[in-house]
Amino acid sequence: MIKVGIVGGTGYTGVELLRLLAQHPQVVLQVITSRADAGTPVSQMFPSLRGYVDLVFTHPDEAHLEQCDVVFFATPNGIAMQQTRALLDAGVRVIDLAADFRIKDIAEWEKWYGMPHACSDLVAEAVYGLPEVNRDKIKQARLVANPGCYPTAVQLGFIPLLEAGLIDTGSLIADAKSGVSGAGRKAEIATLFSEASDNFKAYGVGGHRHLPEIRQGLANVSGKPVGLTFVPHLTPMIRGIHATLYARLKADADLQALFEQRYAKEAFVDVLPAGSMPETRSVRGSNHCRIAVHRPQGGDTVVILSVIDNLVKGAAGQAVQNLNIMFDLPEATALRVLPLLP
Amino acid sequence: MIKVGIVGGTGYTGVELLRLLAQHPQVVLQVITSRADAGTPVSQMFPSLRGYVDLVFTHPDEAHLEQCDVVFFATPNGIAMQQTRALLDAGVRVIDLAADFRIKDIAEWEKWYGMPHACSDLVAEAVYGLPEVNRDKIKQARLVANPGCYPTAVQLGFIPLLEAGLIDTGSLIADAKSGVSGAGRKAEIATLFSEASDNFKAYGVGGHRHLPEIRQGLANVSGKPVGLTFVPHLTPMIRGIHATLYARLKADADLQALFEQRYAKEAFVDVLPAGSMPETRSVRGSNHCRIAVHRPQGGDTVVILSVIDNLVKGAAGQAVQNLNIMFDLPEATALRVLPLLP
Amino acid sequence: MIKVGIVGGTGYTGVELLRLLAQHPQVVLQVITSRADAGTPVSQMFPSLRGYVDLVFTHPDEAHLEQCDVVFFATPNGIAMQQTRALLDAGVRVIDLAADFRIKDIAEWEKWYGMPHACSDLVAEAVYGLPEVNRDKIKQARLVANPGCYPTAVQLGFIPLLEAGLIDTGSLIADAKSGVSGAGRKAEIATLFSEASDNFKAYGVGGHRHLPEIRQGLANVSGKPVGLTFVPHLTPMIRGIHATLYARLKADADLQALFEQRYAKEAFVDVLPAGSMPETRSVRGSNHCRIAVHRPQGGDTVVILSVIDNLVKGAAGQAVQNLNIMFDLPEATALRVLPLLP
Amino acid sequence: MIKVGIVGGTGYTGVELLRLLAQHPQVVLQVITSRADAGTPVSQMFPSLRGYVDLVFTHPDEAHLEQCDVVFFATPNGIAMQQTRALLDAGVRVIDLAADFRIKDIAEWEKWYGMPHACSDLVAEAVYGLPEVNRDKIKQARLVANPGCYPTAVQLGFIPLLEAGLIDTGSLIADAKSGVSGAGRKAEIATLFSEASDNFKAYGVGGHRHLPEIRQGLANVSGKPVGLTFVPHLTPMIRGIHATLYARLKADADLQALFEQRYAKEAFVDVLPAGSMPETRSVRGSNHCRIAVHRPQGGDTVVILSVIDNLVKGAAGQAVQNLNIMFDLPEATALRVLPLLP
Repeated sequence: MIKVGIVGGTGYTGVELLRLLAQHPQVVLQVITSRADAGTPVSQMFPSLRGYVDLVFTHPDEAHLEQCDVVFFATPNGIAMQQTRALLDAGVRVIDLAADFRIKDIAEWEKWYGMPHACSDLVAEAVYGLPEVNRDKIKQARLVANPGCYPTAVQLGFIPLLEAGLIDTGSLIADAKSGVSGAGRKAEIATLFSEASDNFKAYGVGGHRHLPEIRQGLANVSGKPVGLTFVPHLTPMIRGIHATLYARLKADADLQALFEQRYAKEAFVDVLPAGSMPETRSVRGSNHCRIAVHRPQGGDTVVILSVIDNLVKGAAGQAVQNLNIMFDLPEATALRVLPLLP
Repeated sequence: MIKVGIVGGTGYTGVELLRLLAQHPQVVLQVITSRADAGTPVSQMFPSLRGYVDLVFTHPDEAHLEQCDVVFFATPNGIAMQQTRALLDAGVRVIDLAADFRIKDIAEWEKWYGMPHACSDLVAEAVYGLPEVNRDKIKQARLVANPGCYPTAVQLGFIPLLEAGLIDTGSLIADAKSGVSGAGRKAEIATLFSEASDNFKAYGVGGHRHLPEIRQGLANVSGKPVGLTFVPHLTPMIRGIHATLYARLKADADLQALFEQRYAKEAFVDVLPAGSMPETRSVRGSNHCRIAVHRPQGGDTVVILSVIDNLVKGAAGQAVQNLNIMFDLPEATALRVLPLLP
Repeated sequence: MIKVGIVGGTGYTGVELLRLLAQHPQVVLQVITSRADAGTPVSQMFPSLRGYVDLVFTHPDEAHLEQCDVVFFATPNGIAMQQTRALLDAGVRVIDLAADFRIKDIAEWEKWYGMPHACSDLVAEAVYGLPEVNRDKIKQARLVANPGCYPTAVQLGFIPLLEAGLIDTGSLIADAKSGVSGAGRKAEIATLFSEASDNFKAYGVGGHRHLPEIRQGLANVSGKPVGLTFVPHLTPMIRGIHATLYARLKADADLQALFEQRYAKEAFVDVLPAGSMPETRSVRGSNHCRIAVHRPQGGDTVVILSVIDNLVKGAAGQAVQNLNIMFDLPEATALRVLPLLP
Repeated sequence: MIKVGIVGGTGYTGVELLRLLAQHPQVVLQVITSRADAGTPVSQMFPSLRGYVDLVFTHPDEAHLEQCDVVFFATPNGIAMQQTRALLDAGVRVIDLAADFRIKDIAEWEKWYGMPHACSDLVAEAVYGLPEVNRDKIKQARLVANPGCYPTAVQLGFIPLLEAGLIDTGSLIADAKSGVSGAGRKAEIATLFSEASDNFKAYGVGGHRHLPEIRQGLANVSGKPVGLTFVPHLTPMIRGIHATLYARLKADADLQALFEQRYAKEAFVDVLPAGSMPETRSVRGSNHCRIAVHRPQGGDTVVILSVIDNLVKGAAGQAVQNLNIMFDLPEATALRVLPLLP
């Protein structure tokens, strides 16, 4: 059994990790930390877990995370980088669901995240945990940087086109829409029900932290820098990301076949039949990314529609997928959770 | 393996049965019928099932349901009663998720459902499938009448008080609130998003079909007729029922202990700690009923709060629970699905 | 022109006051205060008011409220009682939308609101601003205590029955459901979109601050104390209260006629035709209360359905109605705002 | 007083016309027709109008529309073109809220709307009712084709850039998101609450009827054909359209000043301060279009955000605006209705 620790389990990615790991046959949930809620039973804060999770939140100072086989960080940005070195030194593997190890360019990271980085050498070592790109590296990794939610949906949509060299990489557009849980379980006016429901808006148009992460991933795949306009929007639903991607085709190709072949062996990327338009609810609660490819009016603009559940494939589910890969388990272990529809 | 057939699988209880049964280790989904959609792959209508359900909707005339071990009816009222006798004669067990076999008093049934009953003798044989009351009878049953959603939430809330003879049975009040999926997957103006969202209303105040079903169940438990006012409401959420129950106490008692003891051995009834107020989302997608007991201001009015997911414990989940009991499987098989929160 | 000041205008009742008063032909908006946002244009915080409200939030210390004819307090509880005496002494009339002056029994107020009262003598003078009961007193009032949202919906539903002496006053039940805006514009986890949407729950079952206010109002009308069980619930919509009221009839009567006659002259109480079930959206954005009377199955339990918009008839609209009465204007001035449907 | 008739008043644009016209000081609502609901009081179908609208739905055959000064068609496509000639001949002016007269190219119209056009000569005469472009022609018009909802939001966003010749017109992108009321008050499964809430999807990617309308409008403004990719999406809110527009800049310019100057005299187009991101709720229930201009990362891609209420500026409100222009009234008459927020 794999001994698992979770740091910072009171947010949405934390409770989602618990939902998935509680059913994982090879995992024993060893410890979950919370500074503010130490001593509180997890199932008191999240009654949905009653009967499934018996843990009590432990103060970080008493967590003995070094006795775990793997530790998930479901913390705000800037926490994991403080604690990872000690864990790695103790032989513990680390999966960070925050952004601390995602951006290879330290200066870029520091600009977007507004703080100095605490361990730039570990950034170099960290493997970006997008299994569809980095599966082999993840297997060997001590430290996995779990991708952001927008970056997951956007990269999976653009990758086949970039790998095939079919599109103009200078003017990519990603118009992305997220459910409100993407903002986390923080008390803020802007995400109150009375503010966010029956309402739609863009945000971060001038610059969103996921922009450099997406650019880095797309550049890696295409072998050169890409020009990307990324506009995220907030839509009144709890879970789900819908990325609508636009690119200019440079050459003709059977795009449907291209996507189907690229993801033929992927358990969690589902290329829909031609003409489909994926709904976010078709992946609600599940680890799938569903993708459809369009070429409206037969023109030279390709439109990719890519949906994920931001808390699953966009966070906790992908983290469990990485866990499975790192520990050489079947990749779908604990992840054959069907979407909840309606 | 148990060969399962589903009649009428294009509604919400149908797709929910599929979600649960697709993961059932002892079940093989043999056939699912739909007159209107025969020939259509199930996963085309419900992309959430892609990769999990390979069935194609079969025309009822070609379904060969008599080759199944058990058939679920997820049909409108009045269908199951036409087909059940032939299935039983062929040795097939039947679980009806509609109302055809719930009411023992045929005249009462015909009054509320507005049609003559096709097989009153089978009504007498049918077992009302509320496991917490009728588990032993369900085990032996050929024909199970799966309870309605409101009746499940309301009965589970009142039962301990009625069994203990603690309340005045002449003036029970059940103020119940349901998510919109309770109205089914039918094209109707009243349940359009633009009508039902950001809105709250009562309906069926003069008389709702679940009233006689609840009255029958409560009368059975208390051994005499009960007086019940039942007011259902429509609330803008997809899933969930919240029943707020009011009764007058005739005698003092430790109500918390009473409820805890009554349901101590029940896997799917969870009595919350004193002072709790259950949220419908704490059971979203799961087969649990969560209950809290209150006595506001220490007065003689007891207030019970009872929540279920109307499509799971209120329909498909309870049907699978009945299946497990009928086939002598562990009762929670395929039902250890954690609630989706947030 | 009436010079109006608003204290605490950054919450939902504040912005709603602005929406209504911006169109009031006899009102000039003189000043609106906010300690935290002094200097910020109102229309920057609330872009919906662009082009209609040119005010800038003023620091309370520089507000010169004593130069107003009337001041609205749209503040948290406990603020108005600190400032009201000075305003009254300066000849300014006051309408408090908070609870400071609603409860006549000071000890009771202090118990429920958890603080000592600052000016108990003014409580005695204050007029409870429910026009349908206290219109004549409001005309003369220097100080109006604007009713709470639940109390408005519940009292208007019970009043005709109590005045007629038709019901058992010992066991009234008010099962009330509120939209989330009732919780105010405060950063709190429980009212985040991801917590409150697609969810339904009761709260304050053990005791809610509106309970003593409702009890006081009902006792005044019936001439004796009443026994009331009040259970509020949170429902996933922005605006609206739906109160479902239950009482035991002591005598027979034409309840429909009773209600119609009681409210025949009221501009903002609309008794629906027999058999109706009011929707909260039928009053969305408007100052109406719509009421329907039911006697299910012809039994002795009467069920009253009463809906209001919690921010209008339950707060800002009723406050403007009181303003109109106090200043001898047509009562509907600035309040002929049609409900927004859908 | 202007005598107004409405054909087809049982849909969302119909009830919205009633909400606005009920307060119009120069209008008398003469007649509203409905074949299916003839004889039903309007306020019975829409209780929100109780006390404001006393009309009863009239059968079309008895409507005597020729006695009106102006008739609004709030009907499905294909109705207005059958009846307009007779009305015009009788001296009645016509405002069609459907699409019958929007597309000048008859063959194009017939392709997208799937029926032969009944009166192509009137198409030539009809004035496209976008006041910000065609105000002078609207003044004189007998027949106004009221723009579609998406076309209004998209055109108002692109117009200043096209008029100034600043962008590459070959590769415009309009990623638009609509609330569900845009689909109308029709009983359809896809727009049920349980299907459309907590969900997000694109639709009509291969081709939407508003595409040719938008292309025509943009071509008119830029003086040559434009290349446009238009992807509409359904978002779980009742009202509102958010258009996110992308274009490639050909030359540098002060875009903020450009937009502010273009719309300086427009009562209903509000250019937000630089850096703003408009919310759909900021125009909920009002006739405003709010626009923000962005140039992310200072690159050559301009991003325009444009929001309207699809039922107001996108339908009924714009129709009333056109009425005011046609009858030489102040353009904002009956349209100074403040947005409802929250």
